[in-house]
Amino acid sequence: MNVLTQPPLIDVTTGPLPASKKIYVKGEIHKDIRVPMREIALHESANEPPVVVYDTSGPYSDPDADIDINLGLPRLREEWIKARGDVEEYEGREVRPEDNGNVTGDKLVTEFPNKQKPMRAKDGKAVTQIAYARAGIVTPEMEFIAIRENLGREKLKEQIERSGESFGAEIPDYITPEFVRDEVARGRAIIPANINHPELEPQIIGRNFLVKINANIGNSAVTSSVAEEVEKMVWATRWGADNVMDLSTGRNIHNIREWIIRNSPVPIGTVPIYQALEKVDKAEDLTWEIYRDTLIEQCEQGVDYFTIHAGVRLRYVPLTANRVTGIVSRGGSIMAKWCLAHHKESFLYENFEEICDIMRAYDVSFSLGDGLRPGSIADANDEAQFGELETLGELTDIAWKKDCQVMIEGPGHVPMNKIKVNMEKQLEVCKEAPFYTLGPLTTDIAPGYDHITSGIGAAMIGWYGTAMLCYVTPKEHLGLPDKNDVKVGVVTYKIAAHAADIAKGHPAAQVRDDALSRARFEFRWEDQFNLALDPETAKDFHDRTLPKEAHKVAHFCSMCGPKFCSMEITQQVRDFVSDEKAKEKELGMKEMSEKFRESGSEVYQPANKVNAAE
Amino acid sequence: MNVLTQPPLIDVTTGPLPASKKIYVKGEIHKDIRVPMREIALHESANEPPVVVYDTSGPYSDPDADIDINLGLPRLREEWIKARGDVEEYEGREVRPEDNGNVTGDKLVTEFPNKQKPMRAKDGKAVTQIAYARAGIVTPEMEFIAIRENLGREKLKEQIERSGESFGAEIPDYITPEFVRDEVARGRAIIPANINHPELEPQIIGRNFLVKINANIGNSAVTSSVAEEVEKMVWATRWGADNVMDLSTGRNIHNIREWIIRNSPVPIGTVPIYQALEKVDKAEDLTWEIYRDTLIEQCEQGVDYFTIHAGVRLRYVPLTANRVTGIVSRGGSIMAKWCLAHHKESFLYENFEEICDIMRAYDVSFSLGDGLRPGSIADANDEAQFGELETLGELTDIAWKKDCQVMIEGPGHVPMNKIKVNMEKQLEVCKEAPFYTLGPLTTDIAPGYDHITSGIGAAMIGWYGTAMLCYVTPKEHLGLPDKNDVKVGVVTYKIAAHAADIAKGHPAAQVRDDALSRARFEFRWEDQFNLALDPETAKDFHDRTLPKEAHKVAHFCSMCGPKFCSMEITQQVRDFVSDEKAKEKELGMKEMSEKFRESGSEVYQPANKVNAAE
Repeated sequence: MNVLTQPPLIDVTTGPLPASKKIYVKGEIHKDIRVPMREIALHESANEPPVVVYDTSGPYSDPDADIDINLGLPRLREEWIKARGDVEEYEGREVRPEDNGNVTGDKLVTEFPNKQKPMRAKDGKAVTQIAYARAGIVTPEMEFIAIRENLGREKLKEQIERSGESFGAEIPDYITPEFVRDEVARGRAIIPANINHPELEPQIIGRNFLVKINANIGNSAVTSSVAEEVEKMVWATRWGADNVMDLSTGRNIHNIREWIIRNSPVPIGTVPIYQALEKVDKAEDLTWEIYRDTLIEQCEQGVDYFTIHAGVRLRYVPLTANRVTGIVSRGGSIMAKWCLAHHKESFLYENFEEICDIMRAYDVSFSLGDGLRPGSIADANDEAQFGELETLGELTDIAWKKDCQVMIEGPGHVPMNKIKVNMEKQLEVCKEAPFYTLGPLTTDIAPGYDHITSGIGAAMIGWYGTAMLCYVTPKEHLGLPDKNDVKVGVVTYKIAAHAADIAKGHPAAQVRDDALSRARFEFRWEDQFNLALDPETAKDFHDRTLPKEAHKVAHFCSMCGPKFCSMEITQQVRDFVSDEKAKEKELGMKEMSEKFRESGSEVYQPANKVNAAE
Repeated sequence: MNVLTQPPLIDVTTGPLPASKKIYVKGEIHKDIRVPMREIALHESANEPPVVVYDTSGPYSDPDADIDINLGLPRLREEWIKARGDVEEYEGREVRPEDNGNVTGDKLVTEFPNKQKPMRAKDGKAVTQIAYARAGIVTPEMEFIAIRENLGREKLKEQIERSGESFGAEIPDYITPEFVRDEVARGRAIIPANINHPELEPQIIGRNFLVKINANIGNSAVTSSVAEEVEKMVWATRWGADNVMDLSTGRNIHNIREWIIRNSPVPIGTVPIYQALEKVDKAEDLTWEIYRDTLIEQCEQGVDYFTIHAGVRLRYVPLTANRVTGIVSRGGSIMAKWCLAHHKESFLYENFEEICDIMRAYDVSFSLGDGLRPGSIADANDEAQFGELETLGELTDIAWKKDCQVMIEGPGHVPMNKIKVNMEKQLEVCKEAPFYTLGPLTTDIAPGYDHITSGIGAAMIGWYGTAMLCYVTPKEHLGLPDKNDVKVGVVTYKIAAHAADIAKGHPAAQVRDDALSRARFEFRWEDQFNLALDPETAKDFHDRTLPKEAHKVAHFCSMCGPKFCSMEITQQVRDFVSDEKAKEKELGMKEMSEKFRESGSEVYQPANKVNAAE
């Protein structure tokens, strides 16, 4: 570990959420596995067990964990990776000035101090989860995920009543490590987990698992700060981001990314062409060599998945000419420009097999980018978009042949009536490789509220089968999200993902809804706040109308006031019904005994005679 | 007009939205009709006509209008109503102390000063829009609505390309007054317009028209202020609320409502049982007489529609006993309590025909309440809910027989997979009477964000056919909404309604989206803000990242920065394509002329030979 002369002052949010306790569930096959979950305790009057929820926040929310940003998170997967015997440490590529945009002096972000040597696959080895899965190996990552996805639903096994419309998804009552292995082997799910990001807590993305969400962070040429970006990552995962994409486009990209990855408990994705572009003057100066070198740079740092816009082929570019909003994907437009300037096929498409070889050596997953996604509802589902999707299907086959993990990115701006066909086409063309969509935004008229225009589309496409939803913040189209925007974006997308899980008929998803509804019904205000996706906001909103502590135990809410209360009346309905039943029972017994006497006290009666007495 | 000694200090928001001008379109059948619309001007570089949007804000946004809250809005329908010759002015019911919760002195809200005598139907007359429609009369209200709904789409007639899935809705390319009449006559749409609310700008609620939204306001026993409530009404309509419900439950109900109605350009709905309950000690003390008297009190004031929970029949009440959240509707629980306490059928159900007779005399529309709607997703679509819906279907028939206008209220909390069947059942059971739904909320785990959990469901059910969406604010379940919550709720529901219009294939809905998308694509920042549902927030969010005035004309956005820009690249694609086409054309001509010479200069060639040259 180097000695820092000027360590960056990085302050991240730590500590548990209200009433929450971090618990760890141990593995059975792999005994050293400890799967984190969040247990939300309820008030004793509830007489209910704590509610267990999925926990993406990593050690930051564990009061027993030592957090040292300069050291990075514990390397929990390191032993698992090394134990497989198929990787080697090596010197790695040297960091060059252009990796940080040639900044020097004060402007250069301090290097992350706790440097590790990178690992890569030994010659000819495939160190990807799909390769292991195909070989029949249940990795520790797979068992970790099985435990994590169940969320204690094994305890609820008896109570599970499945209802829902899954549109062909096959979510089992209970997730076994073998099920995880099988889904990964079939390419229906991916485990983004670079061998150089051993700090991450393994997670799965696939239609037959909980719907995941992604939060984008990243500095830009306009604003930049390492402390801000690391905190955004911690903050996003605190509120439930399953994944974080670092979309930096400014300077110091390399160094900031290192700080983020070393401290991230969730998979980190990037769009390598952004950094490659920073190394040249303009898009047409990009070369395969610069791009490949950037891939290796990021593979060694531990990026878990790459967005690669290899589907933007020369032939599709002219199809966008008559669009209302042309090409809006940054990666897509860079590649389009390159193709046009050289009048040549995309170097990403041409070199796709070599890209696979590189990514396989580190287990970086593909996120095949939709560079031609629509940027307005007018452009949804057009020839350019669906043409590219066909190519992504072809590339999926190649990547699978190369033992690489693949997911597919999707639109964009799509009106509600055109969403479903996107999912159906993707499932067909990409043979059930996981779909990862941005929104989609269902209307273009609400800048400032695009977390909502897109949250609607996200919930729907999540229901139809999208495995991961890329969040949109209120600042979309307008500016860079701040911390509060990140939170609002994450919570909105947790809502969309959860609404989708419920509609799909996920066997354990409704447990939290029901616990919260009971708390609401019984005026357990604190339980209602604590079970909420955002307890702080829920409590704050309540307190603005009824600030006093006493009101949080009051048996009325601010909407109805103390005079009458619908919840109270329901209790009376219950009492009435149980009284009636008691009366009926009593009456029934009495009548029965009368009938019995009347009918001559015969013990056996024809069924219809007894029924008539009811 | 009375002289006020202490007029309440009421300050409401006035003036146009940015770049917006109020225009008035004249009637053709009824020459005195002036239909307000909002025209949003675009920057001259756009070279596009202004975008015309639906305007719910009334005279408040017209800088030429004189606003005097103590006087009320102009009584624009008064002449139309009187001209029909079927109404009479009369003394009306005297205001009693209990109408205002028996408050006195300082606590009593000042009476609205500009008192008018109420009108009612002359003996035996039906003064409802449905009665006129059935008689073949196109009222001024109907022509007003036809003009209002078209939003200038007659100019776009040639351009209209319909795409969308309407699920059986039959939205014509162009709305005629006759179409409005026919829809009202068939009961598929209603025009809520009490003859004692002549200030309102007529509006239609039906599946074959633009989806409408409702905002709830109202004081409660906990908080109260007349100035606040009037401003909330003005504020809600400024942002697009088509309807406002006054759900007051505290004191001064009568006087506050008068201030609201006299100043409201949109229909006002109430739940009369709330006020009736304020006149007695407890639910079981309610009587048909007290309720009937309250109906008349509100009919005379000009309430445009009443939520009446006449479907909460005694037999359904026990069906709620095993619910997670019992009965959550206030009106539903009051009626359930009454039914249980007396062990009698609901007095609303028993006296439904007389209720019709009263409402017909003022043209108050029915909003048949869903008193047994689910309060949690666990309770969605159960026997109690659907049982009540069947009864609402029966009552619809009775109301229609009585020449009354009817819409039907719907849930509630419903997971996505259970939404569509609600719409289908409602259409079937209530024979296409308009559906008016609250949300539905698609998950229970996000108090503080229930505008979003419900906005998802609202967009979907709107698409499926709901005619009006009742908004939910971020404070739902937690507290009373303040002004900002009202705005966020309204904008969220405008998004849902608009997304639904687009998905249904409404012929003019996408005009605004496309204009905004073009503005976005061409970096006309101000146009993008001005076309937004909430221009203030859009501009504010932009300025937080790029505050300088210069940035609003900059050809880059804060996401990409100045180095490269996807929008710019698209322009290059367009240039390339048009260059290529020019080249091809040139080349094609040259080749053709060569071929022509080669083939011996014959004028006619077999088609396949010419094709081969391409």
